[in-house]
Amino acid sequence: MIIATTTSEVRGQVQKWRQAGLTIGLVPTMGYLHEGRASLVDKAVTLCDKVVVSDFVNPTQFGPNEDLETYPRDFKRDCALLEEHGCALVFHPSADEMYPDGNGKTDTYVEILDEMPRQLCGKTCPIHFRGGCTIVAKLFNIVTPDKAFFGQKDAQQLAIIRRMVRDLSYGVEIVGCPIVRETDGLAKSSRNTYLTSAEHQAALILSKSIFLGQKLVADGEKDADKIVAAMEANIKTEPLAKIDYVSAVDGITMMPVHMIGNGTLVAMAVYIGKVRLIDNFIVEE
Amino acid sequence: MIIATTTSEVRGQVQKWRQAGLTIGLVPTMGYLHEGRASLVDKAVTLCDKVVVSDFVNPTQFGPNEDLETYPRDFKRDCALLEEHGCALVFHPSADEMYPDGNGKTDTYVEILDEMPRQLCGKTCPIHFRGGCTIVAKLFNIVTPDKAFFGQKDAQQLAIIRRMVRDLSYGVEIVGCPIVRETDGLAKSSRNTYLTSAEHQAALILSKSIFLGQKLVADGEKDADKIVAAMEANIKTEPLAKIDYVSAVDGITMMPVHMIGNGTLVAMAVYIGKVRLIDNFIVEE
Repeated sequence: MIIATTTSEVRGQVQKWRQAGLTIGLVPTMGYLHEGRASLVDKAVTLCDKVVVSDFVNPTQFGPNEDLETYPRDFKRDCALLEEHGCALVFHPSADEMYPDGNGKTDTYVEILDEMPRQLCGKTCPIHFRGGCTIVAKLFNIVTPDKAFFGQKDAQQLAIIRRMVRDLSYGVEIVGCPIVRETDGLAKSSRNTYLTSAEHQAALILSKSIFLGQKLVADGEKDADKIVAAMEANIKTEPLAKIDYVSAVDGITMMPVHMIGNGTLVAMAVYIGKVRLIDNFIVEE
Repeated sequence: MIIATTTSEVRGQVQKWRQAGLTIGLVPTMGYLHEGRASLVDKAVTLCDKVVVSDFVNPTQFGPNEDLETYPRDFKRDCALLEEHGCALVFHPSADEMYPDGNGKTDTYVEILDEMPRQLCGKTCPIHFRGGCTIVAKLFNIVTPDKAFFGQKDAQQLAIIRRMVRDLSYGVEIVGCPIVRETDGLAKSSRNTYLTSAEHQAALILSKSIFLGQKLVADGEKDADKIVAAMEANIKTEPLAKIDYVSAVDGITMMPVHMIGNGTLVAMAVYIGKVRLIDNFIVEE
């Protein structure tokens, strides 16, 4: 497995692969990989000849009061896991390599100016998604992948990336990959590492209420507000949980819906102590 | 010469050329080509195996009161000129092909949020450059060129595109091409076609004051304000001319300078009757 820290190394290697007629898959990550993120690499390996994983904690996705400095990092462990899963190249740039103006800052953004990035997770951190779009655009321009792989767990990010690809005419196929859960149901996340074991138990209320929502839909409930209310009531039974949002939205536009239908996204963000966790499901009829 | 109207046709053809190991140059234009724009194609032909020219009047670069509807178009004549100059493919999409939301509108932009796009021409039309960056990003993503060619006449656009390429990590080399002038000195422009012959004569005041500024610099004048004042006074001798701006700025950042140095851009926009014309020179020491 090649470890590259500069854009020119990545471009040089990609050019060689292209000349050999190989297809390239990209898995953008912020590192601290777990089996959930590794499943994106597994999927990519089945669909592409060479898989590039970016491992970069992107400063422009963090608000001023967010956990950029303390976001967990373990590049050595990441490399071991990535090699095991068949990654061909890991791109691990410095902040200065990605943001030449220094201090991990930029004034140039890819931004969606309508309501889409201001729904759900964008309500509490409105700059998050422009930072995410911009770094993904940069990675697309450096790696020029045929396909790129994103987790369904970050459902709003996935929808926004699909929108960016359409609106900026990127020739990249976006592959959404299902949520991976612990055996107890908790959706895998780098932030799970922050949870005490008591908090981990409390955090199960997220997946439990997801399963409750899915059951209500399966039983024929079409009223989105009723489903959301039932899920919220369920979450509130857990004393350590504090709801940020539970919402039913259109899975493409992220705008609120009142009737459940095919493609509806039911998503939540819940604080367990100080740790903000997300989970969701998509209605498939 | 291939005429393509859809992004998928362009991608398909580019892929064939890439597989044959050919390099690709892109010349983005808004059509109504003249010898100035054709000189970009000539330059591209000398540096790339296959030259793609986009011929698209981009709605998102026009303000609500600007001349989108009346902007001159003559695609048949463009094709004849392009074929003559060795263009391999002309991309002539509809507004709906480029902006799938319809009406030539989009909410997704590549935008530089600092002062750079708000200087010079951005003072009167602040949305112009985000529209320009966005369409060029889309063309880069569709054509994936090795090199792209822009005229020095639109100096601020060229500087902004260079900035976008750096900040979004595009693997495209930007080639700036010199201003092409009529034998009488007037910089070639699609908008020259709007001028009556009396206005054309009056418009010579732009190039005359450019040459005056260049002479002052050559004679050793370093005070940017004095040079700008002399050029403004010169322009004001022409009754049909109305100054929008004459400015000396840093050629990379577009921020005002008071001392002339290597790379200083001295640029102007002047109305001749209702027609807004631009011209500039770069100081090379």
